Amino acid sequence: MSVLPKSVEKVIENFERLPGIGPKSAARMAYFFLRAPKDRSVNLAKALVEMKKNTVTCKSCFNISDGDPCDICEDSRRDAKKICVVEEPLDVVAIEKSGVYDGKYFVLGGVISPAEGIGPEALRMKELRSRIKEGPDDDIEVIIATNPSLEGEATAAYITDMLGALNDVSIKVSRLAMGLPTGADLEYADRLTLKRALEGRTKI
Amino acid sequence: MSVLPKSVEKVIENFERLPGIGPKSAARMAYFFLRAPKDRSVNLAKALVEMKKNTVTCKSCFNISDGDPCDICEDSRRDAKKICVVEEPLDVVAIEKSGVYDGKYFVLGGVISPAEGIGPEALRMKELRSRIKEGPDDDIEVIIATNPSLEGEATAAYITDMLGALNDVSIKVSRLAMGLPTGADLEYADRLTLKRALEGRTKI
Repeated sequence: MSVLPKSVEKVIENFERLPGIGPKSAARMAYFFLRAPKDRSVNLAKALVEMKKNTVTCKSCFNISDGDPCDICEDSRRDAKKICVVEEPLDVVAIEKSGVYDGKYFVLGGVISPAEGIGPEALRMKELRSRIKEGPDDDIEVIIATNPSLEGEATAAYITDMLGALNDVSIKVSRLAMGLPTGADLEYADRLTLKRALEGRTKI
Repeated sequence: MSVLPKSVEKVIENFERLPGIGPKSAARMAYFFLRAPKDRSVNLAKALVEMKKNTVTCKSCFNISDGDPCDICEDSRRDAKKICVVEEPLDVVAIEKSGVYDGKYFVLGGVISPAEGIGPEALRMKELRSRIKEGPDDDIEVIIATNPSLEGEATAAYITDMLGALNDVSIKVSRLAMGLPTGADLEYADRLTLKRALEGRTKI
């Protein structure tokens, strides 16, 4: 005699596989659906299946999209000479929401992480290289927007080296500025953030 | 032009409604399914729909179960003279996993919480009363196992009063013991836990 109905255990198992969801959260989520009207479960089930059916990876920027090429790659009003390299599709969402960028993107699909056994060959480095090398535009600026983490920095360094090896002086490579975030309290800023804020100080 | 494909937004919306899941976790969960093989989405979708189809509420203890009456209510080896009153089905799972209880259960469906507008009429108080009053057994012990929170205590007090009003001396009402949990550090115990541990001290 098991305590939980088999069908409930199955839902919990499925939720447990999600990133950041432990056994307790998974059980709480399953019980939420047990108590909620049937519609809730059916809606999520349908949405999941529809999402897999209706999304594709854009073969130019590798973002998740409704179509290939994606809306951003197809948008002629956006500056094709700027390519912002990010780790994940959610980073594109974050930058787009800010409304401060008018160029194109390239989604790497992760970061170099020796601890997790992820080398550059597991990311879209080859695709990035061909996009820059064989692209229609000259004077391209590659803006590296990986996270300011150890892995993000290592990945940025790798990309810089890779593009440098192309020996094309018309390619500019830049990195998002590091420093204090707006509204931060200097007193609570970590050492590395302060170091970067000092190194990157600007004249006023 | 929206940044996210509609179908992805829909999945995120569905996840956001879950307890304890914010917009960021919801987005991360959706992207997990985007990257994972199609099976993952299909499996969760199926499991959710199956769960709703294959589970019922036991009309005797109100636990979620494969059948009505549930396995525990039907099990004649369990002591029908003990009824453990819990807030939620997950509490039954916790007690069953401990393997220290051999009686039956009653699931209230929550706790009295004036802050959230939940009064006793929103819980299964009437059903609990009839089960005790009209049940086949005499000499029943009702073990109140609501959480040791403000709401759980208020609910325990309400049940005690309600059962006291039945004026049946054969009904015993008890409450789970309060005190220091095993492995706790006295130094870090909160005031109320210490107070309860002192009040409930046992002679050795």
